[in-house]
Amino acid sequence: MAEPLAARLQALEDREAIRNLIARYGPLADSGDAAGIAALFAEDGIYAVGSMGEAQGREAIAALITGPVHQSLMAAGCAHVLSAPLIELDGSRAAACCHSLVFRHEDGEWTAVRVSANRWLLERGAEGWRVKRRDNALLDGSDAARALLSLPAAPHPRPATHP
Amino acid sequence: MAEPLAARLQALEDREAIRNLIARYGPLADSGDAAGIAALFAEDGIYAVGSMGEAQGREAIAALITGPVHQSLMAAGCAHVLSAPLIELDGSRAAACCHSLVFRHEDGEWTAVRVSANRWLLERGAEGWRVKRRDNALLDGSDAARALLSLPAAPHPRPATHP
Amino acid sequence: MAEPLAARLQALEDREAIRNLIARYGPLADSGDAAGIAALFAEDGIYAVGSMGEAQGREAIAALITGPVHQSLMAAGCAHVLSAPLIELDGSRAAACCHSLVFRHEDGEWTAVRVSANRWLLERGAEGWRVKRRDNALLDGSDAARALLSLPAAPHPRPATHP
Repeated sequence: MAEPLAARLQALEDREAIRNLIARYGPLADSGDAAGIAALFAEDGIYAVGSMGEAQGREAIAALITGPVHQSLMAAGCAHVLSAPLIELDGSRAAACCHSLVFRHEDGEWTAVRVSANRWLLERGAEGWRVKRRDNALLDGSDAARALLSLPAAPHPRPATHP
Repeated sequence: MAEPLAARLQALEDREAIRNLIARYGPLADSGDAAGIAALFAEDGIYAVGSMGEAQGREAIAALITGPVHQSLMAAGCAHVLSAPLIELDGSRAAACCHSLVFRHEDGEWTAVRVSANRWLLERGAEGWRVKRRDNALLDGSDAARALLSLPAAPHPRPATHP
Repeated sequence: MAEPLAARLQALEDREAIRNLIARYGPLADSGDAAGIAALFAEDGIYAVGSMGEAQGREAIAALITGPVHQSLMAAGCAHVLSAPLIELDGSRAAACCHSLVFRHEDGEWTAVRVSANRWLLERGAEGWRVKRRDNALLDGSDAARALLSLPAAPHPRPATHP
């Protein structure tokens, strides 16, 4: 009886860890913690921001935070708000899906200047859960954003050697 | 000792399943998946949208997504963002409560065109957790929306034969 | 084997209780339930709202809800939307971090009139988890809000006698 209980517990802990990982993104972005954001991703992780191209690896991802677009948002006052994610767990891999809202402050009001669909592919390795790939696309009527909101049946492609 | 642990685990799994069910709504709505939305509800489930009447059954609920109001929102670009729900579990029944925000895109900005209170009544049956009833009312100063945000002491009325 | 499982289960239950506690805030605020809001806090709990000073104790915290600022928001129609929190658990103490969005209704649209960073310090006592301190600061480009989004390594200072 202990074994199945332990496996069920592990699945809940995995989901909790993924939820906490995704919940770190907004606070790290809004406090300008570039190294903290980069550490959410795997070494070879990819952050593909629809309208801004694809950043691969922690250095490139950190540069999104230290770059002028993000720094200008922070100077005005901004909030990167992520919705509670839908999580699909498959052993040590997972896919998640959520909205992200970027608010920019001006004169005591906040305007939503980016409202996006997000799909996350995650993997649990030696250092815990990390993001392998995050895709983000503006919900501006384009097909790209809608596609991100349809979770694949299997979380993400496995290497041929995976048991 | 194993029994109480199993029951506690089951309660956590139930809450997790309900959270994931509610987290599916936004992505399904924004990708226009009418059948997916309908499948969140029980066969006889009800979705009561304050200003738009009451849809009962999966066919009627799917029609909310394929209908002109929703399709026009999707063409412009929209996001149906649900906040992390408050969940009250009572065995195989549950009530949940959250906000929903509907953003509509126009010229690179997103405006909140519906901000609502939501109460969900859910039930776990043979096919897992499903929505028996979702009530939604605009937070426009009306009493109806405020009433939805006061969770009932008991999740929802039970049939007389319930043990 | 049962002991470690029980401890892991307890940690998940604690996180779930904290998540539910924080999820109660928005619905209670928008339905004007001052006593309900106060009961989320410990007897000596503090709610420090950046631009409005510091309220200590349940009576002072309830007065934030019954006061004219909040009542005027409710009359117009408002939503206090909290994002899914990042939670750091440390035994019977915890810290959490999230965004809060306050929307005000006017003529069928909702404007974000407060977008804030929030840090929560929580403690589990005889009556369950309660908020010891909540700090809130507007994300208007000020350092104060950014500081709240950097979680401390240890949740919060412990009295010297803590084991």
